[in-house]
Amino acid sequence: MKRSICVICVICGLSLVALAQQQQFANIGDLKLENGGLIRNCRVGYRTFGQLNADKSNVVVFPTWAGGTTEQLQSSIGSGKLVDSTRYFVIAIDALSNGVSSSPSNSRLQPRMKFPKFSLRDTVESQHRLLTEVLHIDRVKAIVGISMGGMQTFQWLVSYPQFMERAVPIVGSPRLAPYDLLLWQAQIEALMRDRDWNGGNYTRNPARALDFAFGELLLTTPTDYNRRTTREKVLADLEKARGDAKRFDANDKIRQDQAMMALDVSRDFGGSLERAARAVKAKVLVVVAKFDHVVTPGPATEFASLLGAKLLELESDCGHLATACESRRLNEAVAEFLQ
Amino acid sequence: MKRSICVICVICGLSLVALAQQQQFANIGDLKLENGGLIRNCRVGYRTFGQLNADKSNVVVFPTWAGGTTEQLQSSIGSGKLVDSTRYFVIAIDALSNGVSSSPSNSRLQPRMKFPKFSLRDTVESQHRLLTEVLHIDRVKAIVGISMGGMQTFQWLVSYPQFMERAVPIVGSPRLAPYDLLLWQAQIEALMRDRDWNGGNYTRNPARALDFAFGELLLTTPTDYNRRTTREKVLADLEKARGDAKRFDANDKIRQDQAMMALDVSRDFGGSLERAARAVKAKVLVVVAKFDHVVTPGPATEFASLLGAKLLELESDCGHLATACESRRLNEAVAEFLQ
Repeated sequence: MKRSICVICVICGLSLVALAQQQQFANIGDLKLENGGLIRNCRVGYRTFGQLNADKSNVVVFPTWAGGTTEQLQSSIGSGKLVDSTRYFVIAIDALSNGVSSSPSNSRLQPRMKFPKFSLRDTVESQHRLLTEVLHIDRVKAIVGISMGGMQTFQWLVSYPQFMERAVPIVGSPRLAPYDLLLWQAQIEALMRDRDWNGGNYTRNPARALDFAFGELLLTTPTDYNRRTTREKVLADLEKARGDAKRFDANDKIRQDQAMMALDVSRDFGGSLERAARAVKAKVLVVVAKFDHVVTPGPATEFASLLGAKLLELESDCGHLATACESRRLNEAVAEFLQ
Repeated sequence: MKRSICVICVICGLSLVALAQQQQFANIGDLKLENGGLIRNCRVGYRTFGQLNADKSNVVVFPTWAGGTTEQLQSSIGSGKLVDSTRYFVIAIDALSNGVSSSPSNSRLQPRMKFPKFSLRDTVESQHRLLTEVLHIDRVKAIVGISMGGMQTFQWLVSYPQFMERAVPIVGSPRLAPYDLLLWQAQIEALMRDRDWNGGNYTRNPARALDFAFGELLLTTPTDYNRRTTREKVLADLEKARGDAKRFDANDKIRQDQAMMALDVSRDFGGSLERAARAVKAKVLVVVAKFDHVVTPGPATEFASLLGAKLLELESDCGHLATACESRRLNEAVAEFLQ
């Protein structure tokens, strides 16, 4: 009998864990946007990992990177990973326009380019409403985000300074440097000028090979890239990307790229990062990558200095992907900071 | 009388110099290509600077960079410049498909995409024929080239090892690294997938802003770029490029990009750079830029080592444009090497 209860418990436990990690959705109704627009019937996707403790003091929010989903975040969650779900109740949240939360590709009322432009501040707003109105969480242990997730983390710090005890923006930015703005605008340009784009009403996803090439050229550094590939492989990879119809949705990407470009944590502070930094209440660990060619580290480094925050500089030649190349160092630093 | 002769001499002299620096053309007839094709009625543009000495021993050949013309090379020619025309007779030569020499944009018999694909080896062949058949020069003091000009210089070294006493390939490559291949293919992709390209039969030049963005993103480094510009200026510059109908001809650029991608000095040597290097007879000074993101320095550095050649590494964060940022150091090193 004891044994069978145990077996049932284990099965129940596994089942609950599996359920918790499954994709969940919350409809938060209409979402008013910073620019005066509206995302109608706004849906926010999320997944939870680990156990919420009794006093709800162990929540870590983990937003997605550009083009990423909470499904992809799973590999960064667990014991010894970036966020330890044996210790924290991790709420991974799908960013607007990632194809899971409300997006040009899935909105019935505002499909394709009818989906309004928004900013990452609106993305943070959608997450705040999910957490407070649906999950009834009014304060969290920490917010941890990578890349566009790091940008959202910076915005969280000034939008809701009292909401988190700690924050770890990783290869993110409080507002994009000129280089980063150009990079995203160039990618938008590539999609919108493509012969298949057709004002967003495409049947074939446009600029697939070119979008792939931007990633290859800039996610890492030329030194790292040349070490990892060959003259033959690079052109074969590009050809493969050309035929990959499902690798991303162009309209979703355009709206997310625009959301990043619209990010500026200083907007409510007269354009002053210094004044924005003064509004921050949380303890912050800022992580940058020295040779990052996607999110160049200048603005995050400056903001860390204004905050008097800890700064971890990843120094490998993996560029933006230093978070993977130096994952052990990163994970240890984040674990120590969150304790 | 003496005075008036002098005046006449001065006027004649100035006139000759002015004439010499003017654009000149040679028709070298049909040019057989490495791939079996043919450029019909091939025209090669050039300009000369300085005086040819009696024994024709002071000729320096100066080929153009990608998208560049001999008109643009003028600023690098003169006393204290990269090539000293008070000491050398400089023959600057327009590369095939630069819009001056035979190109998709100016060929009557093979217009637009009917202009055949070719390689930089064919470009070198066109220059060899200009020099030997038209200008009757059988050996030169040196070949000096920047960027695609440096690539041509590497090809010259193996195509005609006895033709030059010295050579200075500057931020060039004996065959492109994987990163460089991807970069050029991405640019070709941007042009050919643009909604205005239309198989090369455009009335509006395609992908102008995107082509501009590639240059901005990669000619220098993110660090240098962010130092030199602002969030406001970068998007204004992109908008300006969008409206600039005449900044380049897309078909010319496509064929030149393909010519660079087809470069491989080892092709006649079983793919071995080591064997190719053994064929070289000239003294060589190889110049690379450490943070070059357009012509990544690996292959040139390797070839320099195989040649036992002098290597000058430019170390500023100006990337490919280190030749401008460190022009004094470069010019002095080249002047010393050529003496």
